[in-house]
Amino acid sequence: MSELVAELASGERRPLARLLTRIENGDAALRPQLQELFGAGRGAHVVGITGPPGSGKSTLVNALIGEWRRRGRRVGILAVDPSSPYTRGAILGDRIRMMEHAADRDVFMRSMASRGELGGLAATTWIAAAALDAAGYDPVLIETVGAGQSEVEIARLAETTVVVEVPEMGDEVQAIKAGLLEVADIVAVNKGDRPGADRAARQLRAMMSTAGGRVERTPPKIMVTTATSGDGVAELADAVEAHREQARSPVAARGRAANQVRRALADLAATRAREHPAWDQTVQEVADRELDPFTAAERLMEGVG
Amino acid sequence: MSELVAELASGERRPLARLLTRIENGDAALRPQLQELFGAGRGAHVVGITGPPGSGKSTLVNALIGEWRRRGRRVGILAVDPSSPYTRGAILGDRIRMMEHAADRDVFMRSMASRGELGGLAATTWIAAAALDAAGYDPVLIETVGAGQSEVEIARLAETTVVVEVPEMGDEVQAIKAGLLEVADIVAVNKGDRPGADRAARQLRAMMSTAGGRVERTPPKIMVTTATSGDGVAELADAVEAHREQARSPVAARGRAANQVRRALADLAATRAREHPAWDQTVQEVADRELDPFTAAERLMEGVG
Repeated sequence: MSELVAELASGERRPLARLLTRIENGDAALRPQLQELFGAGRGAHVVGITGPPGSGKSTLVNALIGEWRRRGRRVGILAVDPSSPYTRGAILGDRIRMMEHAADRDVFMRSMASRGELGGLAATTWIAAAALDAAGYDPVLIETVGAGQSEVEIARLAETTVVVEVPEMGDEVQAIKAGLLEVADIVAVNKGDRPGADRAARQLRAMMSTAGGRVERTPPKIMVTTATSGDGVAELADAVEAHREQARSPVAARGRAANQVRRALADLAATRAREHPAWDQTVQEVADRELDPFTAAERLMEGVG
Repeated sequence: MSELVAELASGERRPLARLLTRIENGDAALRPQLQELFGAGRGAHVVGITGPPGSGKSTLVNALIGEWRRRGRRVGILAVDPSSPYTRGAILGDRIRMMEHAADRDVFMRSMASRGELGGLAATTWIAAAALDAAGYDPVLIETVGAGQSEVEIARLAETTVVVEVPEMGDEVQAIKAGLLEVADIVAVNKGDRPGADRAARQLRAMMSTAGGRVERTPPKIMVTTATSGDGVAELADAVEAHREQARSPVAARGRAANQVRRALADLAATRAREHPAWDQTVQEVADRELDPFTAAERLMEGVG
């Protein structure tokens, strides 16, 4: 066993924190150790939690952490900042440090931000999840501000995806919701103490059953939670745990693996193309509109394999 | 000149609408014609407009369209739905049909949704923008609900990127804002009739000047608009037009071309890998945790070029 994995297995926080920084920075020297890192996993349940801004998702995550701590679990949390290439996660990172569980030694929280040579943000996140798994945290929560396709993609990498909603929202947010709902294994209609929460849950159940024709999957479980009071939080934790077996069916595991490989491939192709001898000239031809980007990509794929 | 380009050049709406449907569906038969389509561009100014949900972006886009129509321009608009793989753009599409310019023959509006074999949503959007350009629309506006990295990426493909903000917003939305601000060429602080709009604009100017150390670029122009009354809209249109020359510098054009090629490469690599004889077995090994996704990607890149 390498030093890296032995340090993680020790359960100490500092080696894990250092490793996560290297992962976040895309440290290329980690590359040969990834195989071992993935192999050192202890089978943690990787749970994605996403939802639009304003859904009370962070409060709900905080309440879920408390529930899992009461159940004796060591909880890992990765908060993925969608604006990451620019802010380097500073804002969600600050929020994390203010959370009530920040002083708990059995809760490890980290905001994920930058892109590096190891791949895009999705890849960075799943490597980080593997590190938390190897360090003995279970469940590992991946929290994203759900809105764009990146967040949908990150949510799909999790074994169980929880989408947090609120009863009432504007039109644009409705569009975002619809996209997220179809990756949800569990939907938490949060702010359940507001008028209309139960009706919203019923509407969602009806919506998910009629949407079945478009997307072939098990309809998500719809629950009502009130993160601020804790109502429904234990039931949500139960539902997440109950989904674990389903998430580990051979078909589901294969689907996730295919997504991971696709993502890694896309990043690898982009990295190698930049090193292609014809890169500069090809890009210039596209800039001069002498070549379209697709033909350019085909040219750069030659000899890249 | 092919039939495709001749039909677009005719200025009729129906061939353009049919072509956009084929682009959106990822029709592989279009692939050999893309070179010609990109070459048929008339040099339209491609303008990205993004901002968080609730910023009044759609109303502002509507007002900008009115302003450009008064200036005698034919305006193309692509509304990109971030939840696209699932809702197929139905929700933003409905909104578009309700817009006041829907009956104007010199305004062409379209919501972009699905992914297809031609590439991801970003690629689909820029091919669609090339089609609107070839059909004589200028400017071509690309509107996204700005939140995730996909939206940031789409915004970066535009020649000029306008980010719409509002004076007051919650913490999570602040995080989103910060990410968007750093891709902005122009920031419109909308809902300018609310208290604090001018102060918000001053704060943004201060923020952008101190952020200079992290990102090397020209600080964005900060403006105050009130889309509902039209205040500041003509000035915003002026600012967009004034940015056109700057956006077409050789350095800027090269940067955009490099992004387009990278995106096309990622999509091409993923498509080809799925056809690789070792695809099924490699994915299974990743699912069984015998192989990490990065080593898997390297294996699949062999012989793919």
